[in-house]
Amino acid sequence: MSIKLYGYWRSTASYRVRIALNLKQIDYQYIPVHLVKNGGEQHSDSYASLNPAELVPTFVDDDEDIILNQSLAIIEYLDERFTGTAPLIPAHATERARVRALAQDIACDIQPVGNLRVLNALKTQYNADQKHVAKWAAHWIVQGFNGIEKRLQTQAGKYCFDFDVTIADVCLVPQAYNAKRFGVDMSAFPLISKIVDNCNKLDAFKRALPENQIDCESELCV
Amino acid sequence: MSIKLYGYWRSTASYRVRIALNLKQIDYQYIPVHLVKNGGEQHSDSYASLNPAELVPTFVDDDEDIILNQSLAIIEYLDERFTGTAPLIPAHATERARVRALAQDIACDIQPVGNLRVLNALKTQYNADQKHVAKWAAHWIVQGFNGIEKRLQTQAGKYCFDFDVTIADVCLVPQAYNAKRFGVDMSAFPLISKIVDNCNKLDAFKRALPENQIDCESELCV
Repeated sequence: MSIKLYGYWRSTASYRVRIALNLKQIDYQYIPVHLVKNGGEQHSDSYASLNPAELVPTFVDDDEDIILNQSLAIIEYLDERFTGTAPLIPAHATERARVRALAQDIACDIQPVGNLRVLNALKTQYNADQKHVAKWAAHWIVQGFNGIEKRLQTQAGKYCFDFDVTIADVCLVPQAYNAKRFGVDMSAFPLISKIVDNCNKLDAFKRALPENQIDCESELCV
Repeated sequence: MSIKLYGYWRSTASYRVRIALNLKQIDYQYIPVHLVKNGGEQHSDSYASLNPAELVPTFVDDDEDIILNQSLAIIEYLDERFTGTAPLIPAHATERARVRALAQDIACDIQPVGNLRVLNALKTQYNADQKHVAKWAAHWIVQGFNGIEKRLQTQAGKYCFDFDVTIADVCLVPQAYNAKRFGVDMSAFPLISKIVDNCNKLDAFKRALPENQIDCESELCV
């Protein structure tokens, strides 16, 4: 198999790429990288040689001899290389821009501020306990979702942008999963909740769920 | 003038868009939004109606009736709409992906973790003082620059990708400016430093400097 994804079941950035690969109907090999065990397998020499940032995911396409990090760059690459299936970025310039901006609202302004390495730093540098770091993560999700819920009022249909699944939905669903994990009250976000429910009815989203991955460690795992 | 940029002189995300507008040779009106005064002008009703995330920058193109947030989405929009000047994203799919990933290494993994709202939250929630928050910001810059410096060893020329200025350089220069502000020792990053110096020789980068903006408050301001 020419396409490989190095990821972690609960990493929302890995989860985004899994959804995109499924939507594009691309077969791939999933290689788990455990972010906690052994001091974090992402810091191993072999992984760091693939991804010097020592973060997940890393995407490999042997046919094109490309190794890529950054979930949004990977998803745009998939969309440009595999044009025959489910376009994830619209064709028109202003629509493309709006879709990308919503994806970045999540990938730049929400996820990075509450991810594992930041929560660990709060614990070690500020003696924050698990309850505090969960509150920290939830705070930034709520801030971000407040803005997104307002934006969706002017444009949403069945999905974030009318009736097509885009990269914005691909980012929204994992972030909503993460929000539940950190106890965010999703009743404040009816449009986001509706869209996430609609997406999660699709097989591509179901198969990408953290609990459906081979490295899942939760009691929910299949 | 049909194009307006709402920004803040020291916001690196605003700084990225200023560079891109200059590289693309687009005239624009710059409208300062003070992130500190009056409790943060980004939270005013009038600004929040333009940008529900209450962050800078916001980009307006009256000719196309579009209001956009997210610096990377804005820059890709500019690149797609104004094709006659300085392409900021390469034409080939694998090159596009690598360039975007490097831009996102900065815009997703460095900048959001050390920006003003996060540093303010560390102060209010964890009683962090200015020295501690500067150390926090510097830590994430060093982490990110370590990975980027390694990537650049395989691909850099005069700029991040060979001899063309791309969206990766547009993101790197403001982040290096921010690194100096937080006392990062840039001698550990010779390739980044060389590229930043090369970029800063270009008029488009010079005119975008924080100290050359009408809302600059530093003793460096022109």
